[in-house]
Amino acid sequence: MTTNATHLTHHLYPTIIAGGMGSRLWPRSRKSSPKQFLDLMGNGRSMLQEAYDRMTPLVPADHIYVITNREYVDMVRAQLPDVPAENIVGEPAARGSAAAIGLGAIHLLNRDPDAVMAVLTADHLIRRPDVLRDALVGGADLAQSGELITLGIRPTYPETGYGYIEMGDALGQFNGMEARRVRRFREKPDLATAQAFLEAGNFVWNSGMFVWRADVIMAQFQRFMPELHAALTGLQPALNGPDAAAAFDAFWMPLQGNVTIDYGVMEKADRVAVFPVDLGWHDIGSWAALLEVLPKDADGNVAHARHLHHDSSNVLVFSKDRLIATIGLEDMIVVDTGDVVLVMPADRAQDVKKIIQALQKRGLNEYLE
Amino acid sequence: MTTNATHLTHHLYPTIIAGGMGSRLWPRSRKSSPKQFLDLMGNGRSMLQEAYDRMTPLVPADHIYVITNREYVDMVRAQLPDVPAENIVGEPAARGSAAAIGLGAIHLLNRDPDAVMAVLTADHLIRRPDVLRDALVGGADLAQSGELITLGIRPTYPETGYGYIEMGDALGQFNGMEARRVRRFREKPDLATAQAFLEAGNFVWNSGMFVWRADVIMAQFQRFMPELHAALTGLQPALNGPDAAAAFDAFWMPLQGNVTIDYGVMEKADRVAVFPVDLGWHDIGSWAALLEVLPKDADGNVAHARHLHHDSSNVLVFSKDRLIATIGLEDMIVVDTGDVVLVMPADRAQDVKKIIQALQKRGLNEYLE
Repeated sequence: MTTNATHLTHHLYPTIIAGGMGSRLWPRSRKSSPKQFLDLMGNGRSMLQEAYDRMTPLVPADHIYVITNREYVDMVRAQLPDVPAENIVGEPAARGSAAAIGLGAIHLLNRDPDAVMAVLTADHLIRRPDVLRDALVGGADLAQSGELITLGIRPTYPETGYGYIEMGDALGQFNGMEARRVRRFREKPDLATAQAFLEAGNFVWNSGMFVWRADVIMAQFQRFMPELHAALTGLQPALNGPDAAAAFDAFWMPLQGNVTIDYGVMEKADRVAVFPVDLGWHDIGSWAALLEVLPKDADGNVAHARHLHHDSSNVLVFSKDRLIATIGLEDMIVVDTGDVVLVMPADRAQDVKKIIQALQKRGLNEYLE
Repeated sequence: MTTNATHLTHHLYPTIIAGGMGSRLWPRSRKSSPKQFLDLMGNGRSMLQEAYDRMTPLVPADHIYVITNREYVDMVRAQLPDVPAENIVGEPAARGSAAAIGLGAIHLLNRDPDAVMAVLTADHLIRRPDVLRDALVGGADLAQSGELITLGIRPTYPETGYGYIEMGDALGQFNGMEARRVRRFREKPDLATAQAFLEAGNFVWNSGMFVWRADVIMAQFQRFMPELHAALTGLQPALNGPDAAAAFDAFWMPLQGNVTIDYGVMEKADRVAVFPVDLGWHDIGSWAALLEVLPKDADGNVAHARHLHHDSSNVLVFSKDRLIATIGLEDMIVVDTGDVVLVMPADRAQDVKKIIQALQKRGLNEYLE
């Protein structure tokens, strides 16, 4: 952080979006305890706590906000005891990431008209949190001119599961971080397109992390999502008062659709910038991703369990209290929760959703909750 | 059974040897409950109970004997309530199959000097029990002439895991069953030898099932295993009396080695016959064997558990109370007992013993008991 950076954090509010389900990490990630609340890394801290830990060197705990489902508010409070209760915002129903961000924005504006909002995720591993902090401070600087800033991850291989951002002209350095104009957002590409992006050199992965002034994002809602903007301004005066519940019923619940911030705002807005950053960023979106990022033991396995094996390598085993014995396995996932055992090759980890669908179809909700 | 067969069963005593550990079926088969006591087929009857059920159409329950380890006597009594308690014989320590058979023989001789002993196993699936019963009656007939009769399984493929019996001249028909002279016992062959055996046509698998007069097998012990014979004759008068424990201490415990009946007697004796039989016989010696013999569901899997799968076939899953979810598995075994989850490809099922060895080495006896 540069020496003049401190004044930029006075109005900076890291806002962690932690409402998702993380169903591809079933059977550990469950409705009652989604992945952001799990100690997936086995280091004693949940993904949410790690997202919080990354911000405490930068801002005081009372600057940190969490937007989550109403049913997870108590869990967030328990996991982040130093965050004031009023900073933990529960949506009574999910209405998409644009609405979640808007809900955060009106909370911040009620507190600080000059609030700079850093939208953060709770489901990524970030090995270089110092770079993230530098980028947020740089973003807070650039945001003063009304820019919408997105953090872009420099791609290391032609991933087809992420959205990409095509970068244009340089906008200068902010807190030592390079900023570029965003030329275009690109949907998840096919492999040939992803390879072309990688070779072109001016494409980054869309991380889902953003920095902007809260009033600026509200102005974008007014322009591109007027119904959402109207609901938010209706809600804003009642937020922490006795009429909050009635206001949510009146303004929030009728919101239609689950519009993402990318589709609702970013792809349409004029002044969008990107900081291409090297965060040591990993999407912990699947068991295969966990197997890839977690440290291996001497035999090349990830054992978050008592694991006894013969001739097994690159196996991820998880169990709270059972012995997992494996023979002749390679590139496999074995997850034991109290009530479920899941076994699959790592390269089939995306198909966990097929099991979720089958459970839903058969009404076996006990294994989802 | 022929009409004149009934008189042959008056002195016939099926004697089930049920003392083994069945460690290749770990983690279900455990010291406290070895495989013969498990309902491996999922039909509500244990292997031992199935061995018993095969005999009840032939002889009354009080003709059926079980030789087992002393620690399993209560379990045998509980599983076979119609077998008199005195027919359930517990060895205070394992001394090999020859000794176990000898212990059965002296029990029978104390009851019936004309006893014909049918030595049976409790760890094989027999799909044609009627053929087994016919062979035992035929064996009882032939045994009157002093023959030692072994049941040979007609091989269907060149198995290298079994011993073979080379058959010689025909000895005639007994209860409609063909008897042949045994030319030679052959150890487990290599594949080329097994193929040659199969092509030769006069080789059968050694099933470990035998029929002989109890006094005749005792005479063989006297000739080929005089120490065992001396111990048995020392033990015999005390068997069911107040001095039984002292007699076992004096005569049984000092026995050396774990000599098999094949090595100790069969390979050396003169008058050995074989009934080549087609019993629908399957050795349930491993998880792979179970996967092979158990009926498949519509998706080609063996699910002794609540099994939800996506794109999985020829998978055996076992769990008492957990959901087993599998994705993209083929030819795999997943076994969940309360405290252990074992996962392996079916073709590695022999390596369960490697896990057992590792558990023993690390003193993790709780998973073996």
